[in-house]
Amino acid sequence: MIKPLILVSNDDGITSKGIKSLVDVVKKIGDVIVVAPNSPQSGKGHAITVGESLRLEENTTLFENVRAYECSGTPADCVKMARHFVLKDERQPDIIVSGINHGSNTSISVLYSGTMSAAIEGAIEGTPAIGFSLCDYGSDADFSHTLPYIEKLVRQVLEKGLPKGVALNVNFPKKKSEPFKGIRICRQANAKWVEEFDQRFDPYNRPYFWMTGKFVNFDKGEDNDEWAIANNYISVVPCQFDLTAHQAIPVLNEEWEILN
Amino acid sequence: MIKPLILVSNDDGITSKGIKSLVDVVKKIGDVIVVAPNSPQSGKGHAITVGESLRLEENTTLFENVRAYECSGTPADCVKMARHFVLKDERQPDIIVSGINHGSNTSISVLYSGTMSAAIEGAIEGTPAIGFSLCDYGSDADFSHTLPYIEKLVRQVLEKGLPKGVALNVNFPKKKSEPFKGIRICRQANAKWVEEFDQRFDPYNRPYFWMTGKFVNFDKGEDNDEWAIANNYISVVPCQFDLTAHQAIPVLNEEWEILN
Repeated sequence: MIKPLILVSNDDGITSKGIKSLVDVVKKIGDVIVVAPNSPQSGKGHAITVGESLRLEENTTLFENVRAYECSGTPADCVKMARHFVLKDERQPDIIVSGINHGSNTSISVLYSGTMSAAIEGAIEGTPAIGFSLCDYGSDADFSHTLPYIEKLVRQVLEKGLPKGVALNVNFPKKKSEPFKGIRICRQANAKWVEEFDQRFDPYNRPYFWMTGKFVNFDKGEDNDEWAIANNYISVVPCQFDLTAHQAIPVLNEEWEILN
Repeated sequence: MIKPLILVSNDDGITSKGIKSLVDVVKKIGDVIVVAPNSPQSGKGHAITVGESLRLEENTTLFENVRAYECSGTPADCVKMARHFVLKDERQPDIIVSGINHGSNTSISVLYSGTMSAAIEGAIEGTPAIGFSLCDYGSDADFSHTLPYIEKLVRQVLEKGLPKGVALNVNFPKKKSEPFKGIRICRQANAKWVEEFDQRFDPYNRPYFWMTGKFVNFDKGEDNDEWAIANNYISVVPCQFDLTAHQAIPVLNEEWEILN
């Protein structure tokens, strides 16, 4: 029986602990190929490299018995290069997995997430895809409690497929003394970041700024990803790349006076 | 009567022709403040600057009688700095406009668009916001035919507001001999880019790559932005930042065997 081909990427960069953990899990399930950024790409959202060229180099040391490439671009660039250059004349991946991200990608963070942009690229191409994130920002975060669930989730998606145009945003609570309560299918919580800018001065007395912020959750529901994480569930949000606010179309058609 | 406060940003950078045209139009409607990138940010999607610091400098020469700042970050950074640093202790904008982009942001391009990320930041903050793009990539593109429509659209949105969580993605056809047929409220077309990678070698014989691609439109409908542009209508797509594929939630709940 032919094994599934699994493409792995991330946004923390190819040397991060999270991608190593993810590769170790999915090696049990199928043939693995890694195309991941050669530098941290956190917060890059769905950026692609336009007007600049890209580098791609094979890496034979980071992963054992796994074909791996490091790319100078963003996570979305990595998936595009994997499909349309590295695997151009080969079979295409059966699933794309991204992560494990060092830090939460719940709620509004999905928009800013490089991890999820790699998965959304899968959805655009019609390939099942999952972004995995752990709600722990430490570079040496403990991923061990997530690994059996990642294996279950990848096997489930390989077996059942995903609805057309959908990629999954999976977040795991930080490791606690008690085990996870289970997996919840959720919607994206209604929450946002309220930014603050920490102004400092360089040795030439010119100002520069660090963006910091507070996360504010407005959502009182129990069907969203923030609730799930706060209650020690694994959250799974099905995400789409159609940004159309379909419910707003009839509203504008009715209210506006400038339509012919 | 107090004039509306209009925040202007873009992704082509503060020196581009498109933002100058946009500022000239919206000066007729209200008080204008510009916070825009100091370098081209095309294709940056919803990227923000994480792990690096930002610069912000007032510019007193580019726009006449308009307070303007150039920022080292992405379009999303610009809107965040405008709200939470520049206007921190002042009144907040009544509307955010972004563009005019040199090039189309129809269909799937909305995901990669820096222009639209500035507008989506407005939606996140509850401020009406519009991204404007002209389907002409020339740095000296002719924007003149779009200006009366931009004025109408901004006035309409200031008067009527927008549904909660919605920003508008407005695209204008390239200038033709005949005038626009009108404005259409559309959904995002089902189309994508098929990338190709043009491999070259540097003087040290190391490979580098240019990403190019063909745009492929799968959509046969007449209610989408690609159809509107091809038929010389102005397309207006209401966009949301809730990426949840709500229709997929019951599907996964029913099909999956790994839920407790």
